[in-house]
Amino acid sequence: MKPIEYADAPPEVQAVYDDIKRTRGVPDVNNFWKMAAHHPATLRRTWESLKEVMAPGTLDPATKEMIFLAVSITNGCTYCIRSHEAAARKAGMTDAQHGELLAVVGMANETNRLANGYQVEVDVALRDQ
Amino acid sequence: MKPIEYADAPPEVQAVYDDIKRTRGVPDVNNFWKMAAHHPATLRRTWESLKEVMAPGTLDPATKEMIFLAVSITNGCTYCIRSHEAAARKAGMTDAQHGELLAVVGMANETNRLANGYQVEVDVALRDQ
Amino acid sequence: MKPIEYADAPPEVQAVYDDIKRTRGVPDVNNFWKMAAHHPATLRRTWESLKEVMAPGTLDPATKEMIFLAVSITNGCTYCIRSHEAAARKAGMTDAQHGELLAVVGMANETNRLANGYQVEVDVALRDQ
Amino acid sequence: MKPIEYADAPPEVQAVYDDIKRTRGVPDVNNFWKMAAHHPATLRRTWESLKEVMAPGTLDPATKEMIFLAVSITNGCTYCIRSHEAAARKAGMTDAQHGELLAVVGMANETNRLANGYQVEVDVALRDQ
Amino acid sequence: MKPIEYADAPPEVQAVYDDIKRTRGVPDVNNFWKMAAHHPATLRRTWESLKEVMAPGTLDPATKEMIFLAVSITNGCTYCIRSHEAAARKAGMTDAQHGELLAVVGMANETNRLANGYQVEVDVALRDQ
Amino acid sequence: MKPIEYADAPPEVQAVYDDIKRTRGVPDVNNFWKMAAHHPATLRRTWESLKEVMAPGTLDPATKEMIFLAVSITNGCTYCIRSHEAAARKAGMTDAQHGELLAVVGMANETNRLANGYQVEVDVALRDQ
Repeated sequence: MKPIEYADAPPEVQAVYDDIKRTRGVPDVNNFWKMAAHHPATLRRTWESLKEVMAPGTLDPATKEMIFLAVSITNGCTYCIRSHEAAARKAGMTDAQHGELLAVVGMANETNRLANGYQVEVDVALRDQ
Repeated sequence: MKPIEYADAPPEVQAVYDDIKRTRGVPDVNNFWKMAAHHPATLRRTWESLKEVMAPGTLDPATKEMIFLAVSITNGCTYCIRSHEAAARKAGMTDAQHGELLAVVGMANETNRLANGYQVEVDVALRDQ
Repeated sequence: MKPIEYADAPPEVQAVYDDIKRTRGVPDVNNFWKMAAHHPATLRRTWESLKEVMAPGTLDPATKEMIFLAVSITNGCTYCIRSHEAAARKAGMTDAQHGELLAVVGMANETNRLANGYQVEVDVALRDQ
Repeated sequence: MKPIEYADAPPEVQAVYDDIKRTRGVPDVNNFWKMAAHHPATLRRTWESLKEVMAPGTLDPATKEMIFLAVSITNGCTYCIRSHEAAARKAGMTDAQHGELLAVVGMANETNRLANGYQVEVDVALRDQ
Repeated sequence: MKPIEYADAPPEVQAVYDDIKRTRGVPDVNNFWKMAAHHPATLRRTWESLKEVMAPGTLDPATKEMIFLAVSITNGCTYCIRSHEAAARKAGMTDAQHGELLAVVGMANETNRLANGYQVEVDVALRDQ
Repeated sequence: MKPIEYADAPPEVQAVYDDIKRTRGVPDVNNFWKMAAHHPATLRRTWESLKEVMAPGTLDPATKEMIFLAVSITNGCTYCIRSHEAAARKAGMTDAQHGELLAVVGMANETNRLANGYQVEVDVALRDQ
């Protein structure tokens, strides 16, 4: 399958592309959206969900993008690492913050397995929070 | 294997327990450390690494704990979810922030698989950042 | 390591290649088999197992290939996504079904993490099925 | 955190619970929804998305639930395995189909790692589908 | 579903149980086999494969069980961790080796994510081995 | 980001590069270290940890590298598969051992999911080891 460009897209897809471009202030949409467009309902639903979830809230956009990046690194999704590292930097993540983020992601993946390996029982104090 | 309590621990393990208690201002260490103590070198190294990585830096402790929690949720590590949700709340994460964090983690895991499934090619603009 | 071509393969490997070609009605085997051939016991066992598991049963071949594809997308295995998407299409999966499959895989990966993140307790009615 | 029961829920949450009960023809909602209700926007968005994605389409409900179950098994999400195995059975999955589903999920997870381990190169014929 | 005990099993399942007991020198089979017995073809195929793969070869049984345990810890499969830690100990793994194994598994999971996060390019010298 | 070469590195990074080259007897460090060098504290801590964990102990270096490789294959980390397969071979892993390792990793990933899918309860005898 090939990315679907704006000129070749049906109106319902163009409408989503237009909203992405307007919301993000970009001249074109990324390949992710041009591939999701092969199933227009998925394109629309994913964009509406992402727009809602990533909007500024009690967490600022840079923090949200860094959380997104941490998940993508853990899952090993190259496309997602590339695109959300770029988004996090655009939202203000510095080189030093990127370095600290990766260090935390690494440690979390290590200690997750130590907890698995030692079959650590949840402390009483941690059960009903 | 059972957790190793302070009274039953060799001096090198007690020294790490003491440093954890002093650094965190807690009366006892969690089960995670009491299990890692079965291999004292792992206990010491993991604590030294974690202390360094989770210390305040260009990312504040609450953000670091939220990133840690995001990874633990993605990996499905129950112990780690319980302990780092508690740590994130102690560092200031509110209920609303916890809700937003989970929403971002969910969306990231979803779109990671859409990117995989559509085999999305990395955009030229995202290649050399 | 390089793929092992038919002409360079020992008789036990050629016999498996022959059975794959006959069973699938293809002129040559995929790179997957040509690499597995580096350990002939793995080649033979994997092919025998796959032939048995993927044969028509109470689930039809297209459904089996779609389940295989869903797992491969979740694990992020590029080779497996490419080869089992092709196999699913050959077995009858349409573009629309592919789009729905990806939407389900995405939602499952999202809600799996919401269930982890909220540490949802299994409902009594779901325990003894 | 505790599940939020209907009587204790704000109107926006009750409205979602009502729609779930009506759509599924059940007297109460599962714990998953009662936990997601801690963040009402996540509850509403997740339900709306799931309702759309899991509705009958070019794939029937049983097939969609089996794909959902395959992902949940791969990720090791106990809650999701329990709830979607129940949903798949309700939609018509038989014991024999469940057995075949698990066999396929097992084989896919095995061959995904053989493909990783042998670093199999994507066949030319599989590149541009 | 409940485990299927020997007395309640059909002859083809009893035959597999008998072979497991004879091969391993144990009086009864584990719950894993009693559950897999719900799909006799899966029971038989999985046992035959496992028996072949875990037999002494160029790797000794303890090393094979430790590799099995490392994978199970990485995937967070509680049942598999419990059963293969027991099998590894029975095959000779000492407490000290268990501690070193967990340390390696932890480091591998950490550096896997650092490699992902930094999007490290494969060195030329590592490409064609 | 680009790999940081020795000539362009600050003294603290050069010191780590020097120690890696000395310890491993290699003329240059791999790209992994040249990327980790973007966050010198991560470079130093990761190297110190890896040097300690991978040193000969009650497990020999080849066994440790094979465990590392098994984890990397399970996680699908291409860079890590390439570099630790090379390290395992350098430490003595033969072609036949590599084949057996992959077979074990495949089976473990398969049976991990069968255990998940059947929701196998931990046997009483496996609970308190």
